Amino acid sequence: MRLAEIFGRNVRKARLAKGWSQEQLAFESNLQRSYISEIETGKRNPTLDVVETIARVLEVRVIELLAE
Amino acid sequence: MRLAEIFGRNVRKARLAKGWSQEQLAFESNLQRSYISEIETGKRNPTLDVVETIARVLEVRVIELLAE
Repeated sequence: MRLAEIFGRNVRKARLAKGWSQEQLAFESNLQRSYISEIETGKRNPTLDVVETIARVLEVRVIELLAE
Repeated sequence: MRLAEIFGRNVRKARLAKGWSQEQLAFESNLQRSYISEIETGKRNPTLDVVETIARVLEVRVIELLAE
């Protein structure tokens, strides 16, 4: 599995654990909801700045979002 | 320090530990040497696909390149 797909799956898991909708994560990270959806389904290839922002608003460590 | 800067510093460390020049890393990862140089100095914001490629050719784990 590609790293971007692993990241997407872990973002979804962390978002749901926080009880957030994609809309809420989009609002908190100042990203588009559609972009969040495409990240979660591995269709996107996010940059490290985006990875860092999402980890911060989800209050998880970056390496947690990149672990298989 | 930004995650992209941490990544750059760790790429440089791993490259030197392998005894590689920036040219060699650029060749192995199919990236431009100037791009490698800008990654190492934190001037770039690489995507997860680039992070994954560089980790693979340097034969280190992604999380090693993202650890502070």
